[in-house]
Amino acid sequence: MRINILGCYSATPRTFTNPTSQVLEIKNHLFLIDCGEGTQVQLRRNKIKFSRIKHIFISHLHGDHYFGLAGLISTFRLLSRESELHVYGPKGIKEVITLQMKLADSWTNYPLLFHELTSKESELVFEDEKVEVYTIPLQHRIYANGFLFKEKPGNRKLNIDAINEYKIDKAYFKKLQQGADVVNEEGELVANEEVTYAPSKRKSYAFCSDTAYKEDIVTIIKKVDVLYHEATFLERHEHLAPKTKHSTAKQAAQIAKLADVGTLILGHYSTRYDDIEEFRQEASEIFKKVELADDGKYFEF
Amino acid sequence: MRINILGCYSATPRTFTNPTSQVLEIKNHLFLIDCGEGTQVQLRRNKIKFSRIKHIFISHLHGDHYFGLAGLISTFRLLSRESELHVYGPKGIKEVITLQMKLADSWTNYPLLFHELTSKESELVFEDEKVEVYTIPLQHRIYANGFLFKEKPGNRKLNIDAINEYKIDKAYFKKLQQGADVVNEEGELVANEEVTYAPSKRKSYAFCSDTAYKEDIVTIIKKVDVLYHEATFLERHEHLAPKTKHSTAKQAAQIAKLADVGTLILGHYSTRYDDIEEFRQEASEIFKKVELADDGKYFEF
Repeated sequence: MRINILGCYSATPRTFTNPTSQVLEIKNHLFLIDCGEGTQVQLRRNKIKFSRIKHIFISHLHGDHYFGLAGLISTFRLLSRESELHVYGPKGIKEVITLQMKLADSWTNYPLLFHELTSKESELVFEDEKVEVYTIPLQHRIYANGFLFKEKPGNRKLNIDAINEYKIDKAYFKKLQQGADVVNEEGELVANEEVTYAPSKRKSYAFCSDTAYKEDIVTIIKKVDVLYHEATFLERHEHLAPKTKHSTAKQAAQIAKLADVGTLILGHYSTRYDDIEEFRQEASEIFKKVELADDGKYFEF
Repeated sequence: MRINILGCYSATPRTFTNPTSQVLEIKNHLFLIDCGEGTQVQLRRNKIKFSRIKHIFISHLHGDHYFGLAGLISTFRLLSRESELHVYGPKGIKEVITLQMKLADSWTNYPLLFHELTSKESELVFEDEKVEVYTIPLQHRIYANGFLFKEKPGNRKLNIDAINEYKIDKAYFKKLQQGADVVNEEGELVANEEVTYAPSKRKSYAFCSDTAYKEDIVTIIKKVDVLYHEATFLERHEHLAPKTKHSTAKQAAQIAKLADVGTLILGHYSTRYDDIEEFRQEASEIFKKVELADDGKYFEF
């Protein structure tokens, strides 16, 4: 699992910082999460293959989280994309993107599918054999969701030496991988655990931005391996957080602690701060394993 | 008069090139012409003061000419702008920008005024005591206008030595500057030309992008000092020009020659070409004074 940060600063793009966008690589998927202005240039800088992006998740309709989407969609057209593109985001996203295409008289030549979100409860929005994605309802000035990406339980792994010893026919391998007990060539029932190893641990990633401190997300993100949580402010500007519906580094750490996550990644820093290292210091006092997002940085888990 | 090229490549932003946007400085105005994705970063890189931009002219509603506008408008809000912002562009521009503000529940705290264009004839769209701006109807896949910026005739300049000699009272200076003959202290009529100099030459700039070869713009842009004309293709790809409603470098030069302009600036190059110098070579065979636009480059006249 790899998280590539394309942009992680709040507000508008600057010469050296970018608004929110990141790419999650999980089980051979490349999920784009948020798409601020300049995302397609950041994708190129980070050498991410455009054609591998098939699913885009938009947290909310503030410009710094999606103003790069219309351009990216039209670039896909110029690149002669043919495969489906799925966009998950708040209701309204289809109207605004479609209006831009209509005014340009430029329709995509690939299937563009919108999945508009309106629920205030967590819901499953994507699923295939390997991964599932749930929304994480956040509390912001406008309707906003985070996203929880979870690997599905993998197959059990075959212990070939044990299989040979127990004389189990190849025809049963699939059943073994699925966890079933099987009958061997001598007609004996062999317990699955005798001839297989446990599947590798399921990894999970939760993206939570933008949001005020919201304790009830803890049940949804409980024990995720990695939590990206916005930290727009430091505690000394805590009074600004409820007004703007953002969080402080300390609050992000409190959520990480309550949810007992593996690693907390901070981001969405207000551009008023010169040194983001302060965010780590503040959060570390509450929760130990803190990383700082930065544009172009990536994390592997 | 100064033209600052922020971006001059066709299609979508890349790591090292930007879509169309430029700033024209004329008679103390800073006019922003087109606003592709990434324009606000380019404005910063080129050290252009955001607050000096009061008028934005959008040629047409293809993304590479305006996808940076919604972000710029919201940045102005974050910068606590108070002064009016005027946006001139095709019908539809108000709807699409307003929809983005509505979905974000983020309205400007400064007056944002749209001037929507629908006419297929050249029309005066802006005028003050010093400058006038006319549309130049272009021929593109969708409704598109170029813009003609013309300084108004300045005042005649006073020849103080001659004025003293003719004994003309100060009270008449304004009339003299406006070109009137006046009566001196001895009751004699003094011809204006005897005591004033001609005003400095009126400068003019025409921006024409995107457009197919369109000969009837020549009457509108006749004898302008500087013509920016798109040159998406070289002649060897001439067959693509009518289909996509773009021009070749040669065609741009033909327009410059017919209109008898001072200088031709080429831009809007297709990203298929590695060396833009070829555009100059091709145009120079038809029209002598050719300049190549490039991102970050500026021209003074």
